[in-house]
Amino acid sequence: MRVCNFQINLESTKAPEFVDVTDQVLDSIAESGISTGNVLVYSKHTTAAIKINEMEPLLLEDMARTLEHIAPRDADYRHNDFTVRTVNMNEDECPNGHAHCQHLALGTSETIPIIDGALQLGTYQRVFFIELDHPRQREFLIQVMGF
Amino acid sequence: MRVCNFQINLESTKAPEFVDVTDQVLDSIAESGISTGNVLVYSKHTTAAIKINEMEPLLLEDMARTLEHIAPRDADYRHNDFTVRTVNMNEDECPNGHAHCQHLALGTSETIPIIDGALQLGTYQRVFFIELDHPRQREFLIQVMGF
Amino acid sequence: MRVCNFQINLESTKAPEFVDVTDQVLDSIAESGISTGNVLVYSKHTTAAIKINEMEPLLLEDMARTLEHIAPRDADYRHNDFTVRTVNMNEDECPNGHAHCQHLALGTSETIPIIDGALQLGTYQRVFFIELDHPRQREFLIQVMGF
Repeated sequence: MRVCNFQINLESTKAPEFVDVTDQVLDSIAESGISTGNVLVYSKHTTAAIKINEMEPLLLEDMARTLEHIAPRDADYRHNDFTVRTVNMNEDECPNGHAHCQHLALGTSETIPIIDGALQLGTYQRVFFIELDHPRQREFLIQVMGF
Repeated sequence: MRVCNFQINLESTKAPEFVDVTDQVLDSIAESGISTGNVLVYSKHTTAAIKINEMEPLLLEDMARTLEHIAPRDADYRHNDFTVRTVNMNEDECPNGHAHCQHLALGTSETIPIIDGALQLGTYQRVFFIELDHPRQREFLIQVMGF
Repeated sequence: MRVCNFQINLESTKAPEFVDVTDQVLDSIAESGISTGNVLVYSKHTTAAIKINEMEPLLLEDMARTLEHIAPRDADYRHNDFTVRTVNMNEDECPNGHAHCQHLALGTSETIPIIDGALQLGTYQRVFFIELDHPRQREFLIQVMGF
């Protein structure tokens, strides 16, 4: 039984952005040499999610609209009120309350089984890194566990 | 440390449908002989989810209404516009934008600890395969890892 | 490869309540002695969730509002109609349909990689136990797997 870890950097270009990272997951599994077990894909951010869904360009627009429905970008968020907020304030702080609240309904990671060397994605399943905040440098982890 | 994989087929009969698959999970763990570790229950579909909640018939109606609130079946989805869509189009393509968008807020898998031979579900926790699209043949995986 | 399990009890004081349990997760990893692998944090309840997000007091109010938007506490839930409901009825049954429906959009667990002895939380990531129902005794599990 072995554990292999990979750190992937990416630069998002808009928000929301659905970045298909399935190929990086497949590459990491190949490099690990692990053929039975599972892979954990993990976002290191509270305003960027990992989620499995279908890669169909029009659908990505629908999903963006669903996220906007769950937590609209232009609604009032106390997290965005920099006149009263004191915690975790940075010089380049941007209003991103919507991104945190959308993240709540998405999630930080996905775990996918690997059997006989094959990642068990269904026909239309692709792994997305979802930028919810604004374009920036991002980082996620791929951990392969098994033998 | 061992990994045991099981593939389960089921036929959904409506949508949304909450199929209680807890017994299949328990059977797979028993068959694996693994007593310490965890079990990953994984849907191979982008319009069918795995989720833990309570098996109470009236509550299932409430959860169906919540899903309808998150992404109404009859709203406009670009994914459903077959006059312009070109990607992943099949002969029997059905309009299912709502199912993908509801899936975003649910999820593809659940992982549950196993300790001393006992699946660690709380008193009211049951594992559901949730059909979001329309009645059809479906498939999910149960992976038990541990010793 | 080893598996170490920890059961944590807590008493929630309101709902929704976001209880930061990151220190308990870190303590459990330290006690396990496991330095490479991952940790599964698992709620044993259908009306209390585990979720990673930022610990910023004003944001917690925003997230509470998002949950209320997804499934309002005072909406009609068939699960709350004790005149017709027969399943899973207890003496002290409280109307909590909203808590179950909010839980659907959150989740039961989070899995986080551990590399070289370090839990791989990003800068602003904290692990929350989220009470959705009402103040009470609660229980969650921390399972560390690796070597």
